[in-house]
Amino acid sequence: MREVVEAIKGNGKFFLATHLNPDGDAIGSAVGFGLALKSMGKQVTVYASDGVPAICRFLPGVDMVIDEAKEEDISGSTLILLDCNTLERAGLKGFTFKRSIVIDHHQTESPFGDVRWVEPREPATGSMVFRLLEDLGQEITPDIATNLYSAIAIDTGVFRYANTTADVLEMAALLVRAGADPVEITERLYNSWSPDRYRLFSLAQASLELHGPIAMSIVTLGMFQETGTTGEDTETFVNYPLVMDTVKVSVMLKEKEGDVWKVSLRSKGDIDISRVAVQFNGGGHRNASGCSFEGNIADVKQRLLNSLREIL
Amino acid sequence: MREVVEAIKGNGKFFLATHLNPDGDAIGSAVGFGLALKSMGKQVTVYASDGVPAICRFLPGVDMVIDEAKEEDISGSTLILLDCNTLERAGLKGFTFKRSIVIDHHQTESPFGDVRWVEPREPATGSMVFRLLEDLGQEITPDIATNLYSAIAIDTGVFRYANTTADVLEMAALLVRAGADPVEITERLYNSWSPDRYRLFSLAQASLELHGPIAMSIVTLGMFQETGTTGEDTETFVNYPLVMDTVKVSVMLKEKEGDVWKVSLRSKGDIDISRVAVQFNGGGHRNASGCSFEGNIADVKQRLLNSLREIL
Repeated sequence: MREVVEAIKGNGKFFLATHLNPDGDAIGSAVGFGLALKSMGKQVTVYASDGVPAICRFLPGVDMVIDEAKEEDISGSTLILLDCNTLERAGLKGFTFKRSIVIDHHQTESPFGDVRWVEPREPATGSMVFRLLEDLGQEITPDIATNLYSAIAIDTGVFRYANTTADVLEMAALLVRAGADPVEITERLYNSWSPDRYRLFSLAQASLELHGPIAMSIVTLGMFQETGTTGEDTETFVNYPLVMDTVKVSVMLKEKEGDVWKVSLRSKGDIDISRVAVQFNGGGHRNASGCSFEGNIADVKQRLLNSLREIL
Repeated sequence: MREVVEAIKGNGKFFLATHLNPDGDAIGSAVGFGLALKSMGKQVTVYASDGVPAICRFLPGVDMVIDEAKEEDISGSTLILLDCNTLERAGLKGFTFKRSIVIDHHQTESPFGDVRWVEPREPATGSMVFRLLEDLGQEITPDIATNLYSAIAIDTGVFRYANTTADVLEMAALLVRAGADPVEITERLYNSWSPDRYRLFSLAQASLELHGPIAMSIVTLGMFQETGTTGEDTETFVNYPLVMDTVKVSVMLKEKEGDVWKVSLRSKGDIDISRVAVQFNGGGHRNASGCSFEGNIADVKQRLLNSLREIL
């Protein structure tokens, strides 16, 4: 962290970027950090190539996020990658920066970055930003606190996942004292489903198949049409089957277009599901990963089941 | 609280009792407090008239809970009611005790108790027991911490409900430092569904009706038969429809026997659902209450909807 602190103190222009399909930790940590850098008098751009997902639009300061990488913002900037560790993953392939810093809690190794601060034990990139701001002696305003609390809430499943510790609960308490509203935040992050989305959820649950410790659900284009929903509406569906004591791995297949499937993988405890995702050119964390497939559904299911059975 | 501290210091034999159909806060606070009193050298009985629900059987010390009120335990004992405030609610109608203490966070007023410590602002009775033990200077052992963390987790919906504050997050951090395992606890409390229960959940979701801001789901005896489940398996189902932004109140009707319905009510924010429960001889909290009905389903639904519309 010391090197990151020095790089921040020693530079004036920053280009913050996070990963494709950004989640609450990606946006919350980038915007929270962006707000802090601004209040330190730095020139800051916050970039998310895919824009801000609907679920994160309530975050204060989120208007500063742009989805276009402009030469004027990049020129002379120190890049800070948040919650990812390659240019590709941030949608910045081919761009060059004066200098680059990686702040990430993902396991996947990559050599990218002049300064690398990667902590797979940290529950969220948001918690790393919190520590960084403390170290910088930077005030946590209510807006920053709201972004960081949201980041941590999303990546710990609101203090339920295996990465929940006394430290993270204490940090959450400090963020609430700094002005984050835990009730409003979880309401926005988790209770903002449309009735259509809830119908999609019912249909997805009804599709559930159990293969021993593997739960597999399927969301088809037909279901999206029937309920008037889109791919974004399936967010968190894959977590639900994990409530079953017999289920160790939950898989959700989401049809993107004919015979193209986006696969979400979740596992409990020590089961490293990223090993399966990596086999199919995907990636992620030990307990939450993803990848894509092309092929007919029966074939895709079989290939996934074969791979999953090898690690179970 | 001072009077409670004195009553505990000044007496040697205690009869701890909690409410009918006990939940995690009822059992966790009673067992946690029971363990603490034992380690203070007190003679302790912990009583739950309906016994310990399956979901709480992992709690350390839960073996001390009895479901029979014996004269030898009652004689000379100071009664401590936890998470309830009348003898009836504890299944102790007609029994007399040397002295009685009430420790509760429910709104419902009752004149019962020689010493009454009622704090509707406290998120759980478990958090009141935590404060009490701190005040008594009593060590929080890992077993006590596990019980109190579970109590608080259940009553805050793992830090999501409107009663989540910086104080409760800080308390949770302290309990984890004292030996509670937050991951194991939420796993046991929330991820111990049987596949049969999950099928029942799917059926209950498919039954969902939306009446403006009111979501209503129905679990029939037929569904229990089809899935091989019982009434206990519906625990928490009523919370799910609240994820919809348009839904302010969620109601679940559960068939107990022909034309007898147990009704669970949940509401968001300021909507005081206990006002409806009380109309039908039920009770509970502002955001979580319950009552019972007799009648055919169409009639019961209509009476509930009429009452609910009055408070919305």
